[in-house]
Amino acid sequence: MRKDGLGSINDLIHAKARLGIMSMVMTYEYCDFTMLKEKLRLTDGNLGAHIQKLEEAQYIITKKTFLGRKPKTYVSVTEEGREAYREYIATLEAVLYGEIFHEGEGDK
Amino acid sequence: MRKDGLGSINDLIHAKARLGIMSMVMTYEYCDFTMLKEKLRLTDGNLGAHIQKLEEAQYIITKKTFLGRKPKTYVSVTEEGREAYREYIATLEAVLYGEIFHEGEGDK
Repeated sequence: MRKDGLGSINDLIHAKARLGIMSMVMTYEYCDFTMLKEKLRLTDGNLGAHIQKLEEAQYIITKKTFLGRKPKTYVSVTEEGREAYREYIATLEAVLYGEIFHEGEGDK
Repeated sequence: MRKDGLGSINDLIHAKARLGIMSMVMTYEYCDFTMLKEKLRLTDGNLGAHIQKLEEAQYIITKKTFLGRKPKTYVSVTEEGREAYREYIATLEAVLYGEIFHEGEGDK
């Protein structure tokens, strides 16, 4: 875990809505847009903007398809996203339990 | 844990700088301003503003004193702050591990 304290918390994932999206795509193999919207209680615009940010970081990929004549967007996590999420959890837990503040104290 | 999904994540604590302050006052009985500033790598103004928000919420208390002729500000957690931090961790872990999304699925 990088030793720059709070700076090592991944802001891309830490923002609540994006944390919710990442947690869901780690929980469910495929999440469709409507399911994300309902579970996370976000608006279309808000959810779309957060999905775009995570896509640009290559943490998730989206697939657009049709169910009958109804358009469907599916979101799933990439290997990079899985790795970033695991590192985020490890860093967060080090902060939550204060471990991150003891680092480097020994080697002064 | 309140069942309003992401909404139950305490924004007051979730913001990175304030998360760092709360984690430190939970780790160390007394934190002085300089120690917080160094460990969290925040500016005086930034740290002061975040301390004020946590004080207004009665999660922390500050004590101003002098060490010789040098002014010193000490920050410590209140019982309310301790409780809020514990609830924040429980909620965050439910989100991190996706448990929060399975709630209420059974009782539809």
